[in-house]
Amino acid sequence: MNLAITDVRLTPILVADPPLLNTQGVHQPYTPRLIVEVETADGVTGVGETYGDTKYLELARPFAERLIGRQVSDLNGLFTIADQTAVDSSRVSGKVDVGGLRGVQTADKLRLSVVSGFEVACLDALGKSLGLPVHALLGGKVRDAVEYSAYLFYKWAGHPEGVPGEQDDWGAAIDPAGIVEQARRFTERYGFTSFKLKGGVFPPEEEIAAVRALAAAFPGHPLRLDPNGAWSVATSLKVAKELGDVLEYLEDPALGTPAMAEVAAATGVPLATNMCVTTFAEIQEAFTRGAVQVVLSDHHYWGGLRNTQQLAAICRTFGVGVSMHSNTHLGISLAAMTHVASTVPNLHHACDSHYPWQAEDVLTERLTFDDGKVTVSDAPGLGVTLDREKLAFLHRRWLDDDGSLRERDDAAAMRWADPDWVTPSVPRW
Amino acid sequence: MNLAITDVRLTPILVADPPLLNTQGVHQPYTPRLIVEVETADGVTGVGETYGDTKYLELARPFAERLIGRQVSDLNGLFTIADQTAVDSSRVSGKVDVGGLRGVQTADKLRLSVVSGFEVACLDALGKSLGLPVHALLGGKVRDAVEYSAYLFYKWAGHPEGVPGEQDDWGAAIDPAGIVEQARRFTERYGFTSFKLKGGVFPPEEEIAAVRALAAAFPGHPLRLDPNGAWSVATSLKVAKELGDVLEYLEDPALGTPAMAEVAAATGVPLATNMCVTTFAEIQEAFTRGAVQVVLSDHHYWGGLRNTQQLAAICRTFGVGVSMHSNTHLGISLAAMTHVASTVPNLHHACDSHYPWQAEDVLTERLTFDDGKVTVSDAPGLGVTLDREKLAFLHRRWLDDDGSLRERDDAAAMRWADPDWVTPSVPRW
Repeated sequence: MNLAITDVRLTPILVADPPLLNTQGVHQPYTPRLIVEVETADGVTGVGETYGDTKYLELARPFAERLIGRQVSDLNGLFTIADQTAVDSSRVSGKVDVGGLRGVQTADKLRLSVVSGFEVACLDALGKSLGLPVHALLGGKVRDAVEYSAYLFYKWAGHPEGVPGEQDDWGAAIDPAGIVEQARRFTERYGFTSFKLKGGVFPPEEEIAAVRALAAAFPGHPLRLDPNGAWSVATSLKVAKELGDVLEYLEDPALGTPAMAEVAAATGVPLATNMCVTTFAEIQEAFTRGAVQVVLSDHHYWGGLRNTQQLAAICRTFGVGVSMHSNTHLGISLAAMTHVASTVPNLHHACDSHYPWQAEDVLTERLTFDDGKVTVSDAPGLGVTLDREKLAFLHRRWLDDDGSLRERDDAAAMRWADPDWVTPSVPRW
Repeated sequence: MNLAITDVRLTPILVADPPLLNTQGVHQPYTPRLIVEVETADGVTGVGETYGDTKYLELARPFAERLIGRQVSDLNGLFTIADQTAVDSSRVSGKVDVGGLRGVQTADKLRLSVVSGFEVACLDALGKSLGLPVHALLGGKVRDAVEYSAYLFYKWAGHPEGVPGEQDDWGAAIDPAGIVEQARRFTERYGFTSFKLKGGVFPPEEEIAAVRALAAAFPGHPLRLDPNGAWSVATSLKVAKELGDVLEYLEDPALGTPAMAEVAAATGVPLATNMCVTTFAEIQEAFTRGAVQVVLSDHHYWGGLRNTQQLAAICRTFGVGVSMHSNTHLGISLAAMTHVASTVPNLHHACDSHYPWQAEDVLTERLTFDDGKVTVSDAPGLGVTLDREKLAFLHRRWLDDDGSLRERDDAAAMRWADPDWVTPSVPRW
């Protein structure tokens, strides 16, 4: 058995995305992702997936070169490579990246997002080489299926007139009735039993009404609302008070640890985050101040599946809950999320996933949700197979793009419908 | 490849131990250890080692039964078994276990100490089955050798008159000159360049003099002093002041997190511990209060090598240093310690090890220290081979014992020399 890496392939793609609304704008008709393939001397190929914007690509290329000759089992070594790979400082800022909806942007976080794509590919290749599923490489699953929540979005029926893009069959959802209808379809199609509404789109009263409508339609089901930090502390507390009896948690009502700590101190509704705790460096302050009760991990920007396990261990140690955040992603990442989630004992909330919104994928066979759950694969590696034709098709779309869609930019997409749109300042309400 | 566990063998042994002094008494002439063997359906055997006192044995037996039929790769499942295995409540207390020198005794900690023996055995078997060293199962080594410190002890030339036991060639060390002489032998035999003195044996002035003598004999070398919590806060601060210029850190000067926090607040000398942070449950308070600057992990009571990695990740996240504690142990544990230490990026202090004091072992070949370091093995599994004759010999000693040596009890051993000896109350000085 030869585990040495002999080839690394990076394939940027553009994937169809419906017009999902958030506080910064709307999803573009196509969103960039990067597909990573790592091949060993034995001809075993592992696949990974991460963000595909140019800044990630720029970093992934030198990273890939350094991988050649290393062992796919040398996962700790990926961080050594990351430390050695320079980041163009104009690509990052220490500030919260409001547009990205994913918290601060730092050189380390950018590197970790790239590491995660390679780490998953290495784990997939290692698992295939050894005949073991990825979860076994992570210490073994403690559950046979991982529960996901229905990720509800305010959305338009289609992308703006004249903008290229694919049609989806979900229809519009811009009021409580539309959200409930969307939730029903989620339950019918996938069996989800908990619901998360992406908020921060309409004034809080309308979103409170939507959550109330969900509570009435699905009594007793766990509900969550996530305005991506769009609210002031006062507004956050008002919403917490009005929805406290039906919310499993409130996600990032206000922006940043100090504001979250203020909200947390004044409400009994648990606060979740994927914005103020998105790096190991942010944990100490947030946990010490009691700013968050649930961290929504994301193996992409936390640096991979093993770092996600470490994050979960830290949360357990500090009595903080853990679940999983999602950004637009494909089946490789869903498989990776499912493997790691299956190994985390203290996972007490259904994970988020955009996957139902992605009609396109790069796999020969899509992953499926049954009763809202994805079964943990026991096949070697991730248990997924790359469809090279689909990959080539989506890569062709990336090649053909004039550059305008290669960077995810929800505000730019919104300006196609509303030329006067500017990214709202925070707090918006 | 069949990774199912078909047999588990538990072999309690008694290992020769020199008359090393600590604040609670003296090491017995023989100390109990438990050797764990896990065999797979393919006939691959993995070995582990943990504490061998009766309370560990009692727990290991039902644990071993539950292992049959499980996969050696199912490491997370070991904690599920631990949760299911009842602990005789008379065996534990929530209080700091002064006699044990290893912090609180709880049912969880007892279970984790047993888990660690099985986890290491499973990792060894898994590595042998896959053809991978244990460090590769832990994400890969980030260094090729692990540095250890010379573990200096006040000691007698031999065990008390009339007590059975083995002779050692180290001679007595009961004053500064004796400690310096011992340190010289450590450097000559093993090449160690940092030194830890087990203190709490003599009044602080004498131990200060010993450390000063070490500093004079080995200028610039890292020095540590560990009285196992024997001092008051005031005494701790006095010692910190007098030795601050030569100490790498002061280890557990005072007992418990509140006292350690008080010391830490008033001195710039870093405090290390293997007594007030010995479980995940103790981390939050100690870290929040800034009570410790270095946690000395011990894979035995933290629950194995993967938990040790998690502990290291928590320490890194909170800006706390990490190194490794040691209790009397054999080569299996030294190999395990070396594998996990090789994977921890934030290991910035030489690890402790009693191994040079153990003339007996259960391996065909002893591990060696070169320039104070143990080379990380790249052989499959731990890279050690059990010597069944030696194992049988040491097990025979355990079988022949009338029970008086099957529980480690440093105070009882001291009473052979001084019938009036009682475990000193803390703070002793």
